[in-house]
Amino acid sequence: RLYSTTIRKMGIQKLNEEERNTLLSPLLTNSSWELVQNRDAIKKNFTFKDFNEAFGFMSRIALRADKVDHHPEWFNVYNRVEITLATHDCQGLSQRDVDLAKFIDNVYATFTK
Amino acid sequence: RLYSTTIRKMGIQKLNEEERNTLLSPLLTNSSWELVQNRDAIKKNFTFKDFNEAFGFMSRIALRADKVDHHPEWFNVYNRVEITLATHDCQGLSQRDVDLAKFIDNVYATFTK
Amino acid sequence: RLYSTTIRKMGIQKLNEEERNTLLSPLLTNSSWELVQNRDAIKKNFTFKDFNEAFGFMSRIALRADKVDHHPEWFNVYNRVEITLATHDCQGLSQRDVDLAKFIDNVYATFTK
Amino acid sequence: RLYSTTIRKMGIQKLNEEERNTLLSPLLTNSSWELVQNRDAIKKNFTFKDFNEAFGFMSRIALRADKVDHHPEWFNVYNRVEITLATHDCQGLSQRDVDLAKFIDNVYATFTK
Repeated sequence: RLYSTTIRKMGIQKLNEEERNTLLSPLLTNSSWELVQNRDAIKKNFTFKDFNEAFGFMSRIALRADKVDHHPEWFNVYNRVEITLATHDCQGLSQRDVDLAKFIDNVYATFTK
Repeated sequence: RLYSTTIRKMGIQKLNEEERNTLLSPLLTNSSWELVQNRDAIKKNFTFKDFNEAFGFMSRIALRADKVDHHPEWFNVYNRVEITLATHDCQGLSQRDVDLAKFIDNVYATFTK
Repeated sequence: RLYSTTIRKMGIQKLNEEERNTLLSPLLTNSSWELVQNRDAIKKNFTFKDFNEAFGFMSRIALRADKVDHHPEWFNVYNRVEITLATHDCQGLSQRDVDLAKFIDNVYATFTK
Repeated sequence: RLYSTTIRKMGIQKLNEEERNTLLSPLLTNSSWELVQNRDAIKKNFTFKDFNEAFGFMSRIALRADKVDHHPEWFNVYNRVEITLATHDCQGLSQRDVDLAKFIDNVYATFTK
């Protein structure tokens, strides 16, 4: 496990310009993620019917986050969840944030359908 | 809280014949709940894409179950969840099982849409 | 349920001076809860070994919060959890915040033993 | 990820005799895990004060299980949790079951202290 973790961590680099256009822009344009001011990070607010839905949503994200070892900064009160994503190891946005944002959007979609 | 809990518990009675026709039958006919053999209880099997979905489903049911103080008997392995419902206080099926079954079905529907 | 909920909600009042001395002060003195500036609320920071512990802690609080219909404002990133408690219905601190703070402290104690 | 997953999966073998003596025996002798009849698997029953504790325990195990891609077979009703461990890929007990059993015991210890 140590070996494969090292490989994974070494691969973490900030998104370059092309990746920002192809990977990040769709999240900002189509899916309500916003750039955070004064920091290379993205955030999004989610609203649910009640706490049951909000924490069910958080539980699925928690499982994924710990599995891929990439954890959100998040705030919750009752039916609202605010999530900020950035990658600690590269001090900015990486492919891992894009992947987790897509997962989060997919889970959120199940609540709003 | 003690007072209201007492009121609630006192109200727990087994479903009568009419309630079984109007409340229980729809679950058995339309929603794959089955009567358990040799016991006044119902059960249903749920299948998901993966463990993330299955445990997200369980987390929402856990929150509801503890809120209404009515807990399922459930088994899980990976993407499968088997739930049995019955009411301890009346040694059989009550309105509370019908309510929890409906909640469970509603949560499950969000995963299969 | 509507009836008992109404009774419960009607009972929510801000802590009076005596209650602040007897109920709130011990939390501030013995247990690291702090008064929030410019708002009648309390907050506390919790640190864990890892995300697994932090979210396990949050899961237990989530279950209790939804059961008693009193939800925290909380922020998490990896092994840190910051919790703010106040009562929406009375626009300040009530007995319910004291109760939830004690529950939270008891759960936290299991992680630090 | 595919590459590292393949490496990991290829390494899964049933415990040999020596490993059963050194790794498995301590679980059976010191920690109440039992061999399952007619199957190369181990099981243990856990009891808690209430559902809140039981599901908090399950949440921590769920996070770990999904992280290491090794999931328990488990049953819960109210304050009881019954866990069976075996490794699907090798049709029996492997190092991964020993590791998960130890993690589960460590989490359980926080509830009984």
